[in-house]
Amino acid sequence: MAYKKVVIIGGGFGGLNVAKGLKKSKDLDVLLIDKTNHHLFQPLLYEVATAALSPGEIATPIREVVRHQANTSVIMGEVEAIDKNNHQIIMGNGDRISYDCLVIAIGARHSYFGNDAWEPFAPGLKTISDALRIREHVLVSFEKAERIDSISEAEALLNFVVIGGGPTGVEMAGALAEIAHKTMFKNFRRIRPEKSKIYLVEALPNILPTYPLKLALRATKDLEKMGVRVLTGKKVTSISQEGVQMEGLFIPCRNVIWAAGNQVSPLLKTLEVPLDRAGRAIVKPDLTIPDHPEIFVIGDAACAMGKDNKPLPGIAPTAIQQARYVAKIIAAKTPVENRKPFKYFDKGSMATIGKSKAIVVMGKLQFAGFIAWVAWCFIHIVYLIGFRSRFGVMVEWFYIWLTGQRGVRLITRTIESELPRQK
Amino acid sequence: MAYKKVVIIGGGFGGLNVAKGLKKSKDLDVLLIDKTNHHLFQPLLYEVATAALSPGEIATPIREVVRHQANTSVIMGEVEAIDKNNHQIIMGNGDRISYDCLVIAIGARHSYFGNDAWEPFAPGLKTISDALRIREHVLVSFEKAERIDSISEAEALLNFVVIGGGPTGVEMAGALAEIAHKTMFKNFRRIRPEKSKIYLVEALPNILPTYPLKLALRATKDLEKMGVRVLTGKKVTSISQEGVQMEGLFIPCRNVIWAAGNQVSPLLKTLEVPLDRAGRAIVKPDLTIPDHPEIFVIGDAACAMGKDNKPLPGIAPTAIQQARYVAKIIAAKTPVENRKPFKYFDKGSMATIGKSKAIVVMGKLQFAGFIAWVAWCFIHIVYLIGFRSRFGVMVEWFYIWLTGQRGVRLITRTIESELPRQK
Repeated sequence: MAYKKVVIIGGGFGGLNVAKGLKKSKDLDVLLIDKTNHHLFQPLLYEVATAALSPGEIATPIREVVRHQANTSVIMGEVEAIDKNNHQIIMGNGDRISYDCLVIAIGARHSYFGNDAWEPFAPGLKTISDALRIREHVLVSFEKAERIDSISEAEALLNFVVIGGGPTGVEMAGALAEIAHKTMFKNFRRIRPEKSKIYLVEALPNILPTYPLKLALRATKDLEKMGVRVLTGKKVTSISQEGVQMEGLFIPCRNVIWAAGNQVSPLLKTLEVPLDRAGRAIVKPDLTIPDHPEIFVIGDAACAMGKDNKPLPGIAPTAIQQARYVAKIIAAKTPVENRKPFKYFDKGSMATIGKSKAIVVMGKLQFAGFIAWVAWCFIHIVYLIGFRSRFGVMVEWFYIWLTGQRGVRLITRTIESELPRQK
Repeated sequence: MAYKKVVIIGGGFGGLNVAKGLKKSKDLDVLLIDKTNHHLFQPLLYEVATAALSPGEIATPIREVVRHQANTSVIMGEVEAIDKNNHQIIMGNGDRISYDCLVIAIGARHSYFGNDAWEPFAPGLKTISDALRIREHVLVSFEKAERIDSISEAEALLNFVVIGGGPTGVEMAGALAEIAHKTMFKNFRRIRPEKSKIYLVEALPNILPTYPLKLALRATKDLEKMGVRVLTGKKVTSISQEGVQMEGLFIPCRNVIWAAGNQVSPLLKTLEVPLDRAGRAIVKPDLTIPDHPEIFVIGDAACAMGKDNKPLPGIAPTAIQQARYVAKIIAAKTPVENRKPFKYFDKGSMATIGKSKAIVVMGKLQFAGFIAWVAWCFIHIVYLIGFRSRFGVMVEWFYIWLTGQRGVRLITRTIESELPRQK
C-alpha cells in the first residue's frame, strides 16, 4: 500500500478528525472537501433554530482548523460522483480529482420516508441554513398572529408540531415551549404566546426509544410540565399547508418541524456497493467497502455493526472514534490483512429537555434532572471546537438560564405580502 | 392638542427613543411599527459584513426593549402610504391605522444617484440582510478563487472595491484589508489572500470630507499602511459584472461595496411635503411638517438645519436627540406655539480605520491612533443596547484584537453551480 494523495469528503466530526489525525504524516497530501466552508457542531444546531445561539457560535471555518497543517488543503465544493475504478471523484462542475485513498464522511440529510412533498411544510434540521429558516419561520408566526384578525388562523400560527421523538425532537419541543411560554411572555399585546400549543409526535409507544424506559418516561413528564403535549403511538399520515394529519387527529398548524428520519445523500449510490434502508454503505470491520481497502466510509454515512450486531448509533462520538481509527490506518499504511476491526467504545448518551432538565445514560449509571443537565452542558462545552465558541456559548447559556431570554431573535425578511389582504 | 394614539414608524435610534421617552405617559396609546422585528445598532453593521460580529450581537428584538412598557405595542409590517388628511397610515396589506400624532423615523437606504442598475453588482449596507449578503459574497470570492484555474478571474475575485470615502466606506475598506491580509493568512494553498487588492474610491479630493483635513490625511496614511489603495478625485462612471469603470481607470472585480449615497424611502413622497435632494422631508424648527404640527419627521428621514444653516449629519446622535425632543413635546402635549426649536448638541464624531486605528473630533479636540481607537470602542460599547450585546461584543473585539481572527466566517449557500464548467 503506497498512499500519497488522501481525499476526504465532508468536514463534519468524521472528516475533520481524519484530517487532524493525519497531521504528522508529512508524506501525505490531504484534501478535505466540504459543501460549506464551516465545520458545524451539530448537537447544538437546535439552539440556533430556537434563537438561543448565533450560527457563528457553533460553526468554525474548516480552513481555520487546519490552517497550520501544511499537508492539508481545503476546497469548498460538491462531489457529484465517485469513480472507484479510476480512483477519482467528480466534482459538480466536472473537475476530476484523483486519490490514492478516499474517506467518505458525508453525514446524512433528513428523510421523509418517501413523502418528499412534506418537506416544504416540515423542514428538517441539519445545516445552518435549515436552522435559520426554522428560526425565522417560528418568529414570523408570532408576528403574523399579532397582526391578523382571524382567530382560527392565529391559532394555527401558534400551534407548533415537532415530528419525531428522538433526542433532536425532544430538544426542539422543549426549546419551543420555552420560547412560547417564557421568552415571548409580555412581548405581545393582542396574542398570548404562553397559550401556544407545542406538540411532540412519535409513532412508537414512547419517545426516546433508544433510552431506558424509566428515563424516557421521566423526559415525557418533564416535557409535559413545560407545556409540551406528547403524543405517542401516533403515525403521521399527511402534512400540508393546513396542518398535520395523524390517525384520528388533525392539528391545524403553520409550524411543523421534522425530526423523524435520516437518509444519506445519493452520492453513496455512485459507489455501487450494498446500502442499508437509510442509504448507508454497509462497511467491513475495517470501515472499508468490499474490494476497495482504500475507500473508507464513516459516521452517519456508514452502517457499521456494534458488538450486539446492531448498527452503531448516528452520533458524534461514533464518527469521531471511527475517524481516529481510519486516520491511524492511513498514517501507518496498514495493509488490509493486518487491520484490526474497528471497536466502538460506548461513552453513553444524553439528551436535554429544557432549562435545568436532561437525561443521561453512562453504562449502568442513569440519571435525570438538574445534575444531568449540568453534565450535558459541561460535555457539550468541552467538545465545542475552539476557545472562542466555548466561551461565547457559556456566556449565552448562563444569560438564558438566568433570564429566560433568547437573544438571537432575528427576522431578516418582511412579512407584509404574506398577510391577508384587506379590501 | 389632545393626543391619544401615537404611531411611530421605524424602530431605529429615532423611533425607539421616542417610544422610550413616552414610557411614563400612561394616557397615551403608542404603536411602534417596523419592517423588521429588531432594533439594529447600525454603526457596527460593517462588523457583521466583515465577519467579526454575529447579527445577534448588534440587534435586539424591538418587542423586548418595550416589553414592560404597557402603553406601547409593536407590530412588524411595512407602511405603504400616509393619508395625512384623514390622520391614517395605510399598511402594505391595506390595513388602515388611525393616529392622533405620527412620528416618521424611517431612516434611509443607499442611493445610486439614478444608476439603479448598479445595485446588483454593488450592494449597499443598511440592514442585517445587506450585511449577510456582503459577508457571504466576500467569503465566497476567496473560495472560488482557490478552485478556479483562470489567473485573471482569480485576480478579479481578489480585487475589492469600496465606493464612497465617508466613515462607512473607510471602515469597510479597513476591515476588508484586515480580512485579506491577516484573517485569511495561511488559510489557502493555491491563492495568497494577502495579495488581494482593496481599493477605496472617492469622487472628492479627499476621503472623510466632513472631518478636518489633517485627520482625513492621517486616515489616508493609516489605510495605505494597511494595504488599502485610496483613490481620491475619481468618479465612478459605470459598474457591471466585469468591474468598476472610473475616469481613465478600470478595475476588474467581483466585489464592489457601495457606501456613497443615501436616499429616503419613497414613503415620504406620500406625505406631499417639500423634500430635499436626498428625499428627506424639510422640517420646521420643531421637526414637524408644514401645517401638520402632529406629524414629526426625525433622524435620517428629516432634513433639519443646524446652527450653521447646514443640514444636521445623518448619524445616531442626531436621531437620538431629536427623538428625546419629540417625546417631550408629545408627553407634555405642548401646543405648537409654545414649542422651542430643536437644538442639536454636537458631541463630536469618530471613525475607525482598523485595529488600534481611529480618528476622533470632539469640539476643538482632534486626535488619532490608538487612543482614538480606544475611545471609539468605549463609546460604541456603552451605546450598544442591553447588557448582553455589550458583553458579547467586548469579548469578540478583544479576541479579534488579540488574534486577528474573525470568527463569524459563515457561508450558507453552495458555490458549485457558479464555477466554470469543465468539459
